[in-house]
Amino acid sequence: MSVTGPAGFRAAGVAAGIKSGGALDLALVVNDGPASTAAGVFTTNRVKAAPVLWSQQVLQERRLRAVVLNSGGANACTGPEGFQDTHATAEKVADVLGAGAIDVAVCSTGLIGERLPMDAVLSGVETAAKALDGTEQAASDAANAVLTTDTRAKQALATGDGWSVGGFAKGAGMLAPNMATMLSVLTTDAVIGGDDLERALREASRVTFGRLDVDGGTSTNDTVLVLASGASGVEVSAEDLTAVLTEVCTDLVRQLQADSEGATKAVDITVRGALSEDDAVHIGRTIAEDNLVKTALFGSDPNWGRIAMALGRSGVDIEADKVEIAANGVTLFAAGTRARDRSEADLSGRDIEIVVDLHLGEHQATILTTDLSHGYVEENSAYSS
Amino acid sequence: MSVTGPAGFRAAGVAAGIKSGGALDLALVVNDGPASTAAGVFTTNRVKAAPVLWSQQVLQERRLRAVVLNSGGANACTGPEGFQDTHATAEKVADVLGAGAIDVAVCSTGLIGERLPMDAVLSGVETAAKALDGTEQAASDAANAVLTTDTRAKQALATGDGWSVGGFAKGAGMLAPNMATMLSVLTTDAVIGGDDLERALREASRVTFGRLDVDGGTSTNDTVLVLASGASGVEVSAEDLTAVLTEVCTDLVRQLQADSEGATKAVDITVRGALSEDDAVHIGRTIAEDNLVKTALFGSDPNWGRIAMALGRSGVDIEADKVEIAANGVTLFAAGTRARDRSEADLSGRDIEIVVDLHLGEHQATILTTDLSHGYVEENSAYSS
Repeated sequence: MSVTGPAGFRAAGVAAGIKSGGALDLALVVNDGPASTAAGVFTTNRVKAAPVLWSQQVLQERRLRAVVLNSGGANACTGPEGFQDTHATAEKVADVLGAGAIDVAVCSTGLIGERLPMDAVLSGVETAAKALDGTEQAASDAANAVLTTDTRAKQALATGDGWSVGGFAKGAGMLAPNMATMLSVLTTDAVIGGDDLERALREASRVTFGRLDVDGGTSTNDTVLVLASGASGVEVSAEDLTAVLTEVCTDLVRQLQADSEGATKAVDITVRGALSEDDAVHIGRTIAEDNLVKTALFGSDPNWGRIAMALGRSGVDIEADKVEIAANGVTLFAAGTRARDRSEADLSGRDIEIVVDLHLGEHQATILTTDLSHGYVEENSAYSS
Repeated sequence: MSVTGPAGFRAAGVAAGIKSGGALDLALVVNDGPASTAAGVFTTNRVKAAPVLWSQQVLQERRLRAVVLNSGGANACTGPEGFQDTHATAEKVADVLGAGAIDVAVCSTGLIGERLPMDAVLSGVETAAKALDGTEQAASDAANAVLTTDTRAKQALATGDGWSVGGFAKGAGMLAPNMATMLSVLTTDAVIGGDDLERALREASRVTFGRLDVDGGTSTNDTVLVLASGASGVEVSAEDLTAVLTEVCTDLVRQLQADSEGATKAVDITVRGALSEDDAVHIGRTIAEDNLVKTALFGSDPNWGRIAMALGRSGVDIEADKVEIAANGVTLFAAGTRARDRSEADLSGRDIEIVVDLHLGEHQATILTTDLSHGYVEENSAYSS
């Protein structure tokens, strides 16, 4: 159960023919109200896909009736024609729902630089509208229709007191910093104002999607949307909503980490004792993106020298003699030199925890990442995606 | 012919037993004068190896009689004991040459976090001192003794009017931004003051070693040293020296690029039309370090969408609609959309040229990089280095 878990939502996922081979490739999530409050966070990439430009614009009203999503094409770097395609898609959804295009957000994912097959998209919208349903199966179909190189759907649900938050997400590569980093649609039946909804979404995204860094690649299409139907009749505070949203987003981001391209390890990098949270995040990301660290982890090698190298080049001022580096609970580096022999740290399992303590301040952050494997190279060199 | 090409220099490379298996692992380069002017540029990494801390200190005098270099161990993250090892090595070289330790620079390369076998190092210094010679073979032995995962020695020589510059370099992984990024020793018989020598080295390094970015990994040990003997008797200006030094460094950096770990492609990324050279360098590096770009290049795939993604996430302000992206002479992206079909760009050869024109200003820079191959993953996951 995900987006149809909260009351007031229907969903559908259909095979529109955008992808070859008859895979599900078009999803629709509809908010039946009574409220139609919404908020979104979008990629920080300067090159923004047409659907991002469109959705940012319509979200200014903090209101959405529906979201339409497609896989099989990112509709990025497609010029004014690509933007017209997004607009036409929103118009079509509005038509079949009896709404205005301004109440419809659009998300796309897939190869950059190719126009979408609009005949398939527009007829897919009609098919999806007929398939709309509040069932678990409908939500699952929608979650499956947005997948690209993902191997499985990512869905989550968490409950408050008389209300709930559900959501799905996709993303297996080009996964990196700054909020979004993929597509995700979240729903809630809580009663909440637009400003509070936006604040809750920003905060929940910042510490969840914003802490996943697989390959440094912030995509042109990254989007996280939340739709609030108010159907539970329960008014919630921004704080309560933030907590439950964060629970759902954490669940989704763990699923994204586990299923990212070629990953054989799920690696948590915690940077402690930093002068600020920003410092901790920046150092954690530098380590997470370092190919020498990532290949060592693929080899189950506690090569802490590479971690020391990466943290030293992050640009954050550190005192090398104060730093401690631990892997799976074994402190390998302390007081400027080797603490215990690295053979004592066992990294042979799937889950790896790296803790770097700077011993400078009180702040910390954890970045979720993966190793760099032959599978990643294979998947990203042998196929265009 | 490399470091012994200019008059006034002798070199040696010996098997000291630091590495197992009897490979060359200790090099000595000696300046016989009459002058002993010197300058150095060092890693910007906050975690600096003991030999870097030592050499930075002795170079404050702008004078060097000799450089001793070892492979088989980086002597980084080895605490005060590691610094004492470096000091003892410099003292030993000073003893055998009849000089002061303050006139001896030390460079080390290899695994981080392990102490050096000092018996082997100190007896190796004695062996090397006896082998010192001004021949081409001696220079070649020295160039070979500093190699780690390199598959071949990198040497270069260029001549001015009655004077010359020679040099060798090593480095196959952990190769990235900011001047040094590996070990290199350069020699010249030009007559030049210490300030001018330093200025010439900084400028030459900035546009050569500073533009190579294989994996973003700025090592703890990166060092470039230049020694000037004055033995030609020819006074040269800083400008003339910069030009010839740049020629030698360009030659060396091309050799580093060609031999870097697992590389199947030599990729030049030129960013044009930038508002500043810094912007061009920063965008070029972001593209060069992007794993999705690098894996596409490994697959000979002109996937310009990934280049557009990477340049959009660099943090530099760009106007997406003005950007042009070309691969091997074929413009693939222009005016915000696809220009020509990517099948028209042939990236199947070893050399690939990517040109990104921002159409915002007059500045440009070229970053040298490689692809990300199975070989890179294999070399960096299967062995500790």
